[in-house]
Amino acid sequence: MFRPEIKVVDCTIRDGGLTNNSNFNVETVRAVYRAACEAGIDYVELGYRNSRAMFSPDEYGPWRFCDDSQMAEVTAGVEPRNTKLAVMMDAHKSSADDILPKEQSVVDVIRIATYVKDIDKAVFLAKTAEERGYQTTINIMAISTEGGPTLDEALIQIEEETNALAAYVVDSYGALYSEEIHYLIERYKMFIKTKQIGVHTHNNQQLAFANTVEGIIKGANYVDGTMYGLGRGAGNCPTELLLGFLKNPKFDLRPVLEVIGKYILPLQKEIDWGYHVPYMLTGIRNLHPRAGIEWMTGDTPEDLVTFYKKLEVDYE
Amino acid sequence: MFRPEIKVVDCTIRDGGLTNNSNFNVETVRAVYRAACEAGIDYVELGYRNSRAMFSPDEYGPWRFCDDSQMAEVTAGVEPRNTKLAVMMDAHKSSADDILPKEQSVVDVIRIATYVKDIDKAVFLAKTAEERGYQTTINIMAISTEGGPTLDEALIQIEEETNALAAYVVDSYGALYSEEIHYLIERYKMFIKTKQIGVHTHNNQQLAFANTVEGIIKGANYVDGTMYGLGRGAGNCPTELLLGFLKNPKFDLRPVLEVIGKYILPLQKEIDWGYHVPYMLTGIRNLHPRAGIEWMTGDTPEDLVTFYKKLEVDYE
Repeated sequence: MFRPEIKVVDCTIRDGGLTNNSNFNVETVRAVYRAACEAGIDYVELGYRNSRAMFSPDEYGPWRFCDDSQMAEVTAGVEPRNTKLAVMMDAHKSSADDILPKEQSVVDVIRIATYVKDIDKAVFLAKTAEERGYQTTINIMAISTEGGPTLDEALIQIEEETNALAAYVVDSYGALYSEEIHYLIERYKMFIKTKQIGVHTHNNQQLAFANTVEGIIKGANYVDGTMYGLGRGAGNCPTELLLGFLKNPKFDLRPVLEVIGKYILPLQKEIDWGYHVPYMLTGIRNLHPRAGIEWMTGDTPEDLVTFYKKLEVDYE
Repeated sequence: MFRPEIKVVDCTIRDGGLTNNSNFNVETVRAVYRAACEAGIDYVELGYRNSRAMFSPDEYGPWRFCDDSQMAEVTAGVEPRNTKLAVMMDAHKSSADDILPKEQSVVDVIRIATYVKDIDKAVFLAKTAEERGYQTTINIMAISTEGGPTLDEALIQIEEETNALAAYVVDSYGALYSEEIHYLIERYKMFIKTKQIGVHTHNNQQLAFANTVEGIIKGANYVDGTMYGLGRGAGNCPTELLLGFLKNPKFDLRPVLEVIGKYILPLQKEIDWGYHVPYMLTGIRNLHPRAGIEWMTGDTPEDLVTFYKKLEVDYE
């Protein structure tokens, strides 16, 4: 038994790109794209389309910009089957000028990541993208820091002013417990009536997959994962766990397992992601993971007590 | 706000001992014991008390037998504060002859691990231990494979025939999702009226901590963890995550962080535990992790598709 409305979004290259300035080689990106298509994943997100005015192409790889020509090159020769192609634009780091008319692009969906404070920028980008022929989602980041009425207002704006496919709960800090996910989904449902609700989680407290399942139980139908959880710090909800959980026979786990073995596991030589205590501590304290990432790349990553005390001093 | 009835059991040395035939050095065991006492953890389990007739002392370290003299040596000089000392006996691998009268032992609690089929052995051991002055728990392993009326009968026996502190849900295979944890706790509650319910989980699907929290939400008051999740295969619910979640001010996370940094993280040089896809696949299929562990120690651990197919051939 399955709920056919559930859509899986694999954002391995996009969110994983925060670990390496989006510097994946083309072979890896194509392999992930192909695996997503073969696995029956609904959407595959191959990077950010952010502004070159804010990110230097000398420092950041092509998947931070996702030019339409780049997208066309990497997807060429792969049969997409039923998989749609997505890119993400940060509301405060992108330009509407970078949205070409859909006829000139292989991209299907533009996902807008935003903080509540930038919701007007997000809505503007979403409306622009919709006018130019794309589908959109709006993904509210750092939701664990948003409790007040401005969140409700942002949800009302998404509901009333856009045609987004979904409004997302994004637990950027890996701070939320299941009951908080339940609460947020219920709160979204108060305002989001004509769109779906999405869940995007991080694994600081080893709750990314669990919280995604809790979102599904409460009615979220857009769920994000990355292969083997590739992502900054503690990483993300693993796509393979999602596919293992969902019972829709359209999914095939094997292409994902193959690309994990051949392309993702080897990245561990260069990138350290997954559960570490410093990330857990930032998650528990509802903080951006950057302090944990700095500690993990410092001289004494195993000195956990000093990091614990540092968080107390720096943030209290 | 916290529920004072909740008891945390750290079983780092006991369950972690399945990774190294219980061959920890004394310094590590004493450090874990001391940290548990300083952290305010309610129970610390320092090994199995299993039968030398079934486990050769040439092959297994002292923490597989937990002689009373060994326990007294390792705990000497450490102020236990409010932390009770536990050992585990496998119902089918232990002898009641190894339970000395409590007056001759520093052990407080004997936890009996059992399969449903061995419940009579477990009840006999528990009653023997209780008669000799100990507290007990009964921990039903591989609960994800038990659905029929024999489980209910086992629970009735625990309730009626023993004075156990708690009857445990043990997800040995890391197979359960939150709704199954909810179901099992409710089922236990139908029969366990005068004792607590416990939860012990494994991390094959990254759900060990999440499922423990779900157990707490449904009323379980005995919860097990190991430091940094040390345990066979994917490992266990991390004690540090449990302490971070529980709000009882008697707990102090820092001693646990210190022992993780100094004693547990260095074990990673010798022992590989944590999330890996082969363990996820045995968890999803509700299998003992041994096939995954064999695959991970074989020649092609990264060939995940072949392992996936092997499970299909070997188990269907």
